[in-house]
Amino acid sequence: MFDFTFHNPTKIIFGAGKEALIGAELNAAGIKKVLLVYGRNSVVKSGLLERVLASLKGGNISCSQYGGVDSNPLLSHTREGVALARRDKVEAILAVGGGSVLDESKAIAVGTLADCDVWDFFVGKEVTRALPIFTILTLAATGSEMNGNSVVTNAETKQKYNIASPHTYPKVSILNPELTHSVPLNYTAYSAVDAICHVCEGYFTKEPGTHLQDRLVEGIIKTVIETTDLIMADPSHAQARASFMWTATLALNGLTPAGIGNYSFPNHMIEHAMSAIYNIPHGAGLSIVMPAWMKWYLAKNPGQFERFAKEIFGLDSGTAGIEALERWFVTIKSPVRLSDVGIPATDIEAIAENAEGLARQWGIGGLYPREIIAEILRLAV
Amino acid sequence: MFDFTFHNPTKIIFGAGKEALIGAELNAAGIKKVLLVYGRNSVVKSGLLERVLASLKGGNISCSQYGGVDSNPLLSHTREGVALARRDKVEAILAVGGGSVLDESKAIAVGTLADCDVWDFFVGKEVTRALPIFTILTLAATGSEMNGNSVVTNAETKQKYNIASPHTYPKVSILNPELTHSVPLNYTAYSAVDAICHVCEGYFTKEPGTHLQDRLVEGIIKTVIETTDLIMADPSHAQARASFMWTATLALNGLTPAGIGNYSFPNHMIEHAMSAIYNIPHGAGLSIVMPAWMKWYLAKNPGQFERFAKEIFGLDSGTAGIEALERWFVTIKSPVRLSDVGIPATDIEAIAENAEGLARQWGIGGLYPREIIAEILRLAV
Repeated sequence: MFDFTFHNPTKIIFGAGKEALIGAELNAAGIKKVLLVYGRNSVVKSGLLERVLASLKGGNISCSQYGGVDSNPLLSHTREGVALARRDKVEAILAVGGGSVLDESKAIAVGTLADCDVWDFFVGKEVTRALPIFTILTLAATGSEMNGNSVVTNAETKQKYNIASPHTYPKVSILNPELTHSVPLNYTAYSAVDAICHVCEGYFTKEPGTHLQDRLVEGIIKTVIETTDLIMADPSHAQARASFMWTATLALNGLTPAGIGNYSFPNHMIEHAMSAIYNIPHGAGLSIVMPAWMKWYLAKNPGQFERFAKEIFGLDSGTAGIEALERWFVTIKSPVRLSDVGIPATDIEAIAENAEGLARQWGIGGLYPREIIAEILRLAV
Repeated sequence: MFDFTFHNPTKIIFGAGKEALIGAELNAAGIKKVLLVYGRNSVVKSGLLERVLASLKGGNISCSQYGGVDSNPLLSHTREGVALARRDKVEAILAVGGGSVLDESKAIAVGTLADCDVWDFFVGKEVTRALPIFTILTLAATGSEMNGNSVVTNAETKQKYNIASPHTYPKVSILNPELTHSVPLNYTAYSAVDAICHVCEGYFTKEPGTHLQDRLVEGIIKTVIETTDLIMADPSHAQARASFMWTATLALNGLTPAGIGNYSFPNHMIEHAMSAIYNIPHGAGLSIVMPAWMKWYLAKNPGQFERFAKEIFGLDSGTAGIEALERWFVTIKSPVRLSDVGIPATDIEAIAENAEGLARQWGIGGLYPREIIAEILRLAV
């Protein structure tokens, strides 16, 4: 155990139909005008937007709508959102969507109150305030509904960078697992990979000896695998979708790293650099990077890989555990090689160069110079 | 999975020496005057009180002191605390101690702002506000540092009753595991039993099928057993004390029951009735009640007891799991029979009568009429 501070004030309201409560929750917080941020037309077609608007109306909340968030949200679209939020003098941001919509909404919440460009916060400026953020989640994966993280891509500079602040935890997040029944199976697979990766980053890169946190992580991974398998067989499996949703939230809400000391996000670092260039789904990128990174990292923490193999798959060597995870990624049809998503091996140097900047920003530049990142990526050819 | 709301806004600051931050935390919250509540002289002798007062002075926080909280905190002492808090017009309660001190502090925080007697809230009146509560924890067991629960005993009526409110979550709790190194081994054992019981209540009484929560519970129980064994061999085992402390917090902070639907606290119900009469340590009472209750309840949920046996002890029958837990209680020298704490079998009817009122208050009177409670207690003779 190492010293830590844990403070996660987000209120989670979980259950079918709970989006009907959003008007009341905003009212209770004294908010009268929101910017409603969403992605593509699916929230319109599904009728969700209409139900949300009805709830807002019931709570006498006025609302400006701002759709069009991309699945790797863009800085340019974020900047427009900031301009709109300022013009309409909204008092809060209401995100209706998946992790991308939530992430961009947080960035808009920060940018609206800032006296500088919102990108400044992604390259190092400290966040000191933000508009209150409320969310209605439609895709379980990123954990953005219960943390202060936001990832946005600057398409001009090819930088997929993040902010992490106590000011950008949502006040209230509504999780209706029924909204995730229609998530396509490929995106469900990518989400599973993302959740597993979130807990694996700390699990493998921390110091040994924090068994409580190891057990929490193992419980989360086993549940993700179990529920994903059920969903693959039956996409409307209500219990599996619900359990998957809450598990993905716990995978990145601060619970599993509390007390583990220093750790890092090498897989996310490499994947962000990759999807900044290729615009592939984040989880798809991670299922390519993870087995490669694990094979490279195995020798640095053999005991933990052995534990992983035993606890998750009932196998008795680190290598066997990594292979079993990779096989499972293949089973759920998530890509495991660069060629699976059309990235040629000749592009490895460009990705490694892009990742190097992020490694430095995250304080792991020493362990991950360009050559090492390229070496890891070559294991994914 | 069942619908739930999860909202735990307590900020946890964990680490050696962190009590030095209390002045700054109160300052950040705009508080200028506190009632400092503590128990017996140990916090004075250990020098903790002096360090806390120095931190308050550094933050320009003035303070009234109120010691003498009992290990089963009394309503009479709580009422005096309320009078003192009102007289001195304090703006917050600062609890320095274990679960009892925290529980009484919460009751004082509620009583100070009420226009009725504080006991009214323990017998059904809804808590609508409370002074802000800050805590410095010296004994890991009850989880009171990160929940809204408070248990107080009315010695006149022999009622050990509780409140549970969103208004009584501590704003900030400081957990310095070094403060627990001096906790005597018998109280460490009782604390281990308490933490295990907190997670077992939901684990055994909920509906089956919420595997994520099962795994979180199992991780907590395994860690409590592992760290307690280490502490029994070396009471100053820093890693074990630290891990035990955080594990006990997670055992009752709302994490493990989120999503499990209806569940109940039958062991706590019976134990509270017992210690309201006999003033035995809460955990000591629980290690008597739990094996008895488990033997009685086994037939109602055999699958979960089988799972418990397998996951916790690597055994293959529910009965074997219960026996292994009971044997472990004996190993750590926590009592497992009424006679171990000097309660004669002839007193069972009186305890059952007392428990019956609590069962009704907790909505489980139907399952636990007086005769059944007596039947369970007879398994502890």
